[in-house]
Amino acid sequence: MTTTTTPVTVLGLGAMGSAIAKTFVDRGHRTTVWNRTASRSAPLVDAGAAAAATAAEAAAASPLVVVCLLDGTAVDEVLAAVEGAVAGKVLVNLTSGSPARARANERWARDRGADYLDGKIMGDPPYVGTPNVMFAFSGSRSAFEAHGSTLRQLGTVAYHGEDPGSAAVEFMAQVAVGYEFLIGFLHTLRLVQAEGVDVAEFAERVAGSLAGYPPLLTSFGKAVKSGEYGPDLGSLDVQAALMDDMISHRESLGVESVRMREVKELMDRRIADGHGDQGFSSLFELLAR
Amino acid sequence: MTTTTTPVTVLGLGAMGSAIAKTFVDRGHRTTVWNRTASRSAPLVDAGAAAAATAAEAAAASPLVVVCLLDGTAVDEVLAAVEGAVAGKVLVNLTSGSPARARANERWARDRGADYLDGKIMGDPPYVGTPNVMFAFSGSRSAFEAHGSTLRQLGTVAYHGEDPGSAAVEFMAQVAVGYEFLIGFLHTLRLVQAEGVDVAEFAERVAGSLAGYPPLLTSFGKAVKSGEYGPDLGSLDVQAALMDDMISHRESLGVESVRMREVKELMDRRIADGHGDQGFSSLFELLAR
Repeated sequence: MTTTTTPVTVLGLGAMGSAIAKTFVDRGHRTTVWNRTASRSAPLVDAGAAAAATAAEAAAASPLVVVCLLDGTAVDEVLAAVEGAVAGKVLVNLTSGSPARARANERWARDRGADYLDGKIMGDPPYVGTPNVMFAFSGSRSAFEAHGSTLRQLGTVAYHGEDPGSAAVEFMAQVAVGYEFLIGFLHTLRLVQAEGVDVAEFAERVAGSLAGYPPLLTSFGKAVKSGEYGPDLGSLDVQAALMDDMISHRESLGVESVRMREVKELMDRRIADGHGDQGFSSLFELLAR
Repeated sequence: MTTTTTPVTVLGLGAMGSAIAKTFVDRGHRTTVWNRTASRSAPLVDAGAAAAATAAEAAAASPLVVVCLLDGTAVDEVLAAVEGAVAGKVLVNLTSGSPARARANERWARDRGADYLDGKIMGDPPYVGTPNVMFAFSGSRSAFEAHGSTLRQLGTVAYHGEDPGSAAVEFMAQVAVGYEFLIGFLHTLRLVQAEGVDVAEFAERVAGSLAGYPPLLTSFGKAVKSGEYGPDLGSLDVQAALMDDMISHRESLGVESVRMREVKELMDRRIADGHGDQGFSSLFELLAR
């Protein structure tokens, strides 16, 4: 431990909280830990952390207090327990949750004299401490500036602005994009399986085709921002011709087709509106605002 | 033109058919073209192709007859017109459509003494003739072996077996995976837009995060094939904790949440079934067969 590193407290020692605390210990921060089930502290104490008997005692031990729990309900309980110990400190909440919860937590902290940073983690515990885990932060700019170098120990860090909800917006949007992709992929694995195709080989082929997506997503973003829609994947006039066959094929095999029916309806409406020369990205115009 | 290249006929000169015919002309194949609207032949004739007055005349001109039209209805019309001209030839249908249509076309061709290959194209017309356009073929193996070198002029070629429907299965499954991803992405652009985030910058960040997906898809394919589901993106116990917040956040902003509600319900069922330690890929087990 050097004198230049900030002492840190970590409240919550699930897989992610433990990985975070271990990273701080390994990088020479004086680290105090607490977990509702106390036995989870043992490996961290072995590594050099101090275990506190209560959450309040743990919070009192460091100027930087990191909270990493399962959900917002657990956060509410722990915040209530540390209420008298956070004045003058920076509270960093890395628990998954909504922008509304982040904004409420920020008000709670401000009312008790603490600075608040909300953080959201995209990545897996084993990779904490490497650039392969992304941390999105938002909230107090001065707190981020004071502790950015400490937080960068944990992975690749981005600051999304002073609205404490911004990191949660980014996180929930990124997770949603991934889940949409993956649940659609799983449904389509049912389709190819029903047709006797090797699902692992099909998955390999899809994985191989992903190289084309980054430039496509970038072009979709630009088209949506500008409202100028080129024919990206091909004109809707051509693309729509496939949809009836695609839907009837899926349904003939008992595979769901919610999104494919939606895409067909949106394509048909864009074509009826005189935009059949535009591409898939233009469907954005018809989505609820 | 050399004497070793196969003469080719192309029926249908939309953007894709024209790109295919142009590639054959450029690579030295004697190329005969036909289109319902005859004026579309002009640029190809300028490049060196021969234009036939009727589809039947065009089909009669070459041992390899490529059909590339808008949809199955257009294919039916053209096949009826060339019925007397296809005996002894290889018919390659590159029109989008279902496995059922491909199988029906194969029977039609066989009954008239022609070999049939069904082909499906993944890529854009400007890239025909480069490895960036994928052609999936299925149907007559002997036809594919005889004409594979000619068809490889058009792009990256894969043969999916003698069932003439196999190429269409691959195509419709790949298109569905892409559409699922992209429509979900567009909905989420509405979400970030409603939160005041720059949609083009968000799209860039998603594009940058795609590098992690190929190994993830491959691992999903292996898990589904083996039925052994590790915690991939994290255990369902942890992942499910976010879903209520994610759904309420989307709905509070008027953004649809069909898939997120489905994912939550599937996660909750897997957890209730005692599989909360498994990952997202295990949701496959609950999808309709």
